[in-house]
Amino acid sequence: MRWNLPPSELPTTWFNVLPHLAGQLEPPLHPATRQPVGPDDLAPLFPMALIAQEVSTEPSIEIPGEVLDVLRLWRPTPLIRATRLENALGTPARIYYKDESVSPAGSHKPNTAVPQAYYNKAEGVKRLSTETGAGQWGSALCLASTFFGLECKVYMVRASFQQKPYRRVLMETWGGNVVPSPVDKPDHPGSLGAAISDAVRDAAGRADTHYSLGSVLNHVLLHQTVIGQEAKTQLALAGEDHPDVVIGCCGGGSNLGGISLPFVPDKGVRLLAVEPTSCPTLTGGRFEYDFGDTAGLTPLLPMYTLGHDFVPPSIHAGGLRYHGDAPVISALVRSGRMEAVAYPQSKTFEAAVMWARTQGTVPAPETGHAIKAVIDEALAAKEEGKEKVILFNYSGHGLLDLSAYDDFLHDRLPD
Amino acid sequence: MRWNLPPSELPTTWFNVLPHLAGQLEPPLHPATRQPVGPDDLAPLFPMALIAQEVSTEPSIEIPGEVLDVLRLWRPTPLIRATRLENALGTPARIYYKDESVSPAGSHKPNTAVPQAYYNKAEGVKRLSTETGAGQWGSALCLASTFFGLECKVYMVRASFQQKPYRRVLMETWGGNVVPSPVDKPDHPGSLGAAISDAVRDAAGRADTHYSLGSVLNHVLLHQTVIGQEAKTQLALAGEDHPDVVIGCCGGGSNLGGISLPFVPDKGVRLLAVEPTSCPTLTGGRFEYDFGDTAGLTPLLPMYTLGHDFVPPSIHAGGLRYHGDAPVISALVRSGRMEAVAYPQSKTFEAAVMWARTQGTVPAPETGHAIKAVIDEALAAKEEGKEKVILFNYSGHGLLDLSAYDDFLHDRLPD
Repeated sequence: MRWNLPPSELPTTWFNVLPHLAGQLEPPLHPATRQPVGPDDLAPLFPMALIAQEVSTEPSIEIPGEVLDVLRLWRPTPLIRATRLENALGTPARIYYKDESVSPAGSHKPNTAVPQAYYNKAEGVKRLSTETGAGQWGSALCLASTFFGLECKVYMVRASFQQKPYRRVLMETWGGNVVPSPVDKPDHPGSLGAAISDAVRDAAGRADTHYSLGSVLNHVLLHQTVIGQEAKTQLALAGEDHPDVVIGCCGGGSNLGGISLPFVPDKGVRLLAVEPTSCPTLTGGRFEYDFGDTAGLTPLLPMYTLGHDFVPPSIHAGGLRYHGDAPVISALVRSGRMEAVAYPQSKTFEAAVMWARTQGTVPAPETGHAIKAVIDEALAAKEEGKEKVILFNYSGHGLLDLSAYDDFLHDRLPD
Repeated sequence: MRWNLPPSELPTTWFNVLPHLAGQLEPPLHPATRQPVGPDDLAPLFPMALIAQEVSTEPSIEIPGEVLDVLRLWRPTPLIRATRLENALGTPARIYYKDESVSPAGSHKPNTAVPQAYYNKAEGVKRLSTETGAGQWGSALCLASTFFGLECKVYMVRASFQQKPYRRVLMETWGGNVVPSPVDKPDHPGSLGAAISDAVRDAAGRADTHYSLGSVLNHVLLHQTVIGQEAKTQLALAGEDHPDVVIGCCGGGSNLGGISLPFVPDKGVRLLAVEPTSCPTLTGGRFEYDFGDTAGLTPLLPMYTLGHDFVPPSIHAGGLRYHGDAPVISALVRSGRMEAVAYPQSKTFEAAVMWARTQGTVPAPETGHAIKAVIDEALAAKEEGKEKVILFNYSGHGLLDLSAYDDFLHDRLPD
């Protein structure tokens, strides 16, 4: 069963969670002075509209018409009930998912890439730079850039550039200029931290260029809230009063924030973050100020972190290999409003294959983490013999991650 | 702009074109006797329900409820207006497309794989065998088999098996058993004809196994007519009286048949088949009885053909590399009801990249052929300064064909 909304029902405002976190969010600090950063500190990298959204306390923020026009190419995304998985589990739980895999880039990432490209274009920027690891964010920004006629330069971690050519080709198909990083060390396999440094240096050094980030920051999570807002409308159409639990996988926190933030004010709705045991930021990290990147170029952010020099094992869910978490997600976990759980890689692939063989679609390895938690919640409901409404974010498809399934199906997958 | 239909509006019958082709379709002939084949000749390979559909003259045929239940996982598919492409072309034409890429397998192929698996299951078959070239059909049948608890054995052309592991992994993720073909010549790169022979021999030699074909036959095209029927309903919702032209790429003819057959009785609707110049069956072939496979094991079919020993160049649109055409499509072209046009590979990739940079999604190389014809029709409308309603079938996405885009973008693509 599926609940589609017509394009006219795409939300016209973003849901801002900041008013609901009053007193719980500390400001970012300048890396040199350790004083709160101001708009002027960020202006070389970001357009003023995004800098303003980063600190806005308005309860909702209007989505520009030109952004809506582009998002309507695939939004609203469907809400689907996973009845075949329910039947296979024999659970009394009702499992609903938002299918964010339907975007042209195959994930939720374009929800923020599009407004970021729009605001930069509107302020006269000609060119964006960014980094990408596995390639989900880089491809989303190349897609958004082609919609608004911007150049896009992507610094791709060299190991991925060499081993995962499909994502690179996807970015080039949308007109992106993709180079391996680090640019100055052609024999180095690279890292996300080094790629961020390359991209920030590029933007800081050119007046026509800004930098763009795909997760962690407040404005990124804000843009993703179309997901949860649509889900609320669609759950009502499905006859559900409210979900008992909302689930998303968590790397930096953008897809999790997108589906869960609109439910923060709602009583009786549990929020659940799912992360890999190999990079257990929320379940095993410390809450403290830390850098967003390895090189220490970014502001210090108040978040759960494993330390900015932590190197996660090279699991297939590349989008979950981040040493920290969005300050907004961190604040919710710290206050107890959001729970967190961690799973080893093999359990998430077991869940992903069960999904593929019941529901049909092949999820991204990141999404497999959410599915594992969904299955456990559904089995707990069966154990307790009680109904439960589960909502989760199907953040992306796995069609460009099939080598990971190959490893899993042929017993080559480490935990 | 998009027109979604609720799952309840999935057509509950298939549109049968055979009554509209009275006297135009000659029967298939037995390869040995050259007499018309009867049900008994086909019973070792196909379930009786499909054999009956192959010759039915009922105007419509009911879709079983269990088939509808599975198709509703992704159907009805959206009808979308390609306004960004229209604007880029500056055309007065209105371009609509059916997005068949939203199925779990990424193409229209599951529309027939699901009923084929269902009817086999219903008649007690435990196991299906088939062949696959690039992998679209094999993955659709593995998907359908997992839904109905059937084993699925896929003989994959060895060159593809070795060079395109992603499609093989996709089939395995759905539980399929995929082996390289020819099975008895481990050093041979293989061919579709040899793979058909392997699959037919497998089914003929085991009582628990039937063979399954993904195109060409009447029942296959019948199952695809959900596409065109949905499109009619959706065009009405969009305020269109009828399309002026309906366009699909043509290999065996199943996606083209799916979108165009329901329009066969409609006056004022042109039907257009698009094929590669490197395998020009409709534009350069002879109309005669020929074998469906290279080895000459299948019945002789009345169709346009380049000869069953014709070896098409290895273009990237693997789904269009077939020496013949569906008898239904051949009859329509022969009678003048359907037109045909051929394009070289490079022009179709130019069109596909223009699509990706305006509409966002990356089409399959096969679909790129349809898009090239759509662009030419839209430019002709601009030239003539008149409105035109174009409907085409977006038969699949190109996310597992990105190496072809890599070749095109870096000038390594031959025509």
